[in-house]
Amino acid sequence: MKEDGIGPGQIIRRKQDGSLEYQGDELTIEEPLEIRIGEKTIATTMRTPGHDEELAAGFLLSEAVMRDGDKIAGFSRPKTARNRDNIIVVDLECGKKVKLNSTQRFGTISSSCGLCGKESIEAIRQNFPPIKSTALRIDIETLLSLPDKLRANQSGFARTGGIHAAGIFDANGKALIVREDIGRHNAVDKAIGRAFLDQKLPLDRHLLLVSGGASFEIMQKALAAGIAIIASVSAPSSLAMEFAREMNQTLVGFLRPPSFNIYSHIQRVILK
Amino acid sequence: MKEDGIGPGQIIRRKQDGSLEYQGDELTIEEPLEIRIGEKTIATTMRTPGHDEELAAGFLLSEAVMRDGDKIAGFSRPKTARNRDNIIVVDLECGKKVKLNSTQRFGTISSSCGLCGKESIEAIRQNFPPIKSTALRIDIETLLSLPDKLRANQSGFARTGGIHAAGIFDANGKALIVREDIGRHNAVDKAIGRAFLDQKLPLDRHLLLVSGGASFEIMQKALAAGIAIIASVSAPSSLAMEFAREMNQTLVGFLRPPSFNIYSHIQRVILK
Repeated sequence: MKEDGIGPGQIIRRKQDGSLEYQGDELTIEEPLEIRIGEKTIATTMRTPGHDEELAAGFLLSEAVMRDGDKIAGFSRPKTARNRDNIIVVDLECGKKVKLNSTQRFGTISSSCGLCGKESIEAIRQNFPPIKSTALRIDIETLLSLPDKLRANQSGFARTGGIHAAGIFDANGKALIVREDIGRHNAVDKAIGRAFLDQKLPLDRHLLLVSGGASFEIMQKALAAGIAIIASVSAPSSLAMEFAREMNQTLVGFLRPPSFNIYSHIQRVILK
Repeated sequence: MKEDGIGPGQIIRRKQDGSLEYQGDELTIEEPLEIRIGEKTIATTMRTPGHDEELAAGFLLSEAVMRDGDKIAGFSRPKTARNRDNIIVVDLECGKKVKLNSTQRFGTISSSCGLCGKESIEAIRQNFPPIKSTALRIDIETLLSLPDKLRANQSGFARTGGIHAAGIFDANGKALIVREDIGRHNAVDKAIGRAFLDQKLPLDRHLLLVSGGASFEIMQKALAAGIAIIASVSAPSSLAMEFAREMNQTLVGFLRPPSFNIYSHIQRVILK
């Protein structure tokens, strides 16, 4: 028993009936990850360990450091660092160089200059073209089946709400990739990073489902992967909707069967 | 009617009975905010407009650029910029200088070097001392009343889940400050920023309630404001719990009446 009354690995739970009990403290792991290209630190993010290569790949794709068609030569951990598990080194293909503006900030590539929302969208457009018209269409039944499928692909603890998920599905509702992370954006980076490493981009025949809401940054990541339909369980932001409308993406929100909202480009949802 | 079948200001809703209808597109606003000290850009964040001064103040406090006792001389908008509403300029008190390491990254001050979790906590400790023992104690009834009080202080739209909230309460459950933002961290920055500007720090007789879960970064912000009890509606992360244990903070999670969990320093909750 520690000084604070809670031993290692323990928490105290107040139950519905008002009684108290000790429980195990199973929590989603949060640790920093430093992403390096060679010797250079590109970014650090708080993430749930696992699939670090995918996270790094998805991040570099989202930030337009890498592009569809580029290849990553490999990944490594620094040999000498004590916390090597929290550092991932990306090795680029021979001859590939990274253009990094010294003032470039990561996290939201576009929002570095007090832009207004519309200008943020324009800045993204300079890096990523809008989605081309695709033949992708999804029917309502398939759409409504996705939240259950996302959960079915998550770990058990996910149901407590301690971790976010992002899933990439085809038009038949088949899960291609599902990834989890304590950070919403990281979960998306892991999912699109996997597809990038497998050279499956653009994902213009696929749909992205995220467990939370859709923000500007989520939309940007989806666009970087060429995803034409984005669905979220919660509300999108105003800028996410504007982004979707400009970039020819179909945005579905509040996907809580049997209901949902469509915010843009309804032609990809078969409404019959 | 736009080309995509949805007019400006419209969305399409699939209702419970399967029928479709057009609705208004009321969404939480997301726009970038650039925070400057004088001419220098410190950070940009995607936020919900409103209380920008508080957001800037809370951010500078959280990142240890400002400290308890410091004063901000004032705020302004750039005179000439087109998007002046998305830029906030912080003017420091005469003689006050800001030490900014050129490699300093913001967002998570501590996580700039692939630290392990424990080292991240240690890095924060160098900027902010652990909470001193305080007389603050809260009884279970008051604790259980807080989620309703937080919601009562939110805007109507908040109930749809499109916006996060952070509230600072006293030991009697009285709300001191409640702030909303599309970003969880921004909501906390606004709340502690208000207290900072009102020279009410440290908030060691107060409790912070956040609408989501407690991450490392939320705990860091609470510590910067000297807050001894942090409660969250969802799950904390592993690192949030470790942080709370090290920094002498009481961490409550899954605060969903009549239940909750206590992860650290139970002495501040009157368990009778």
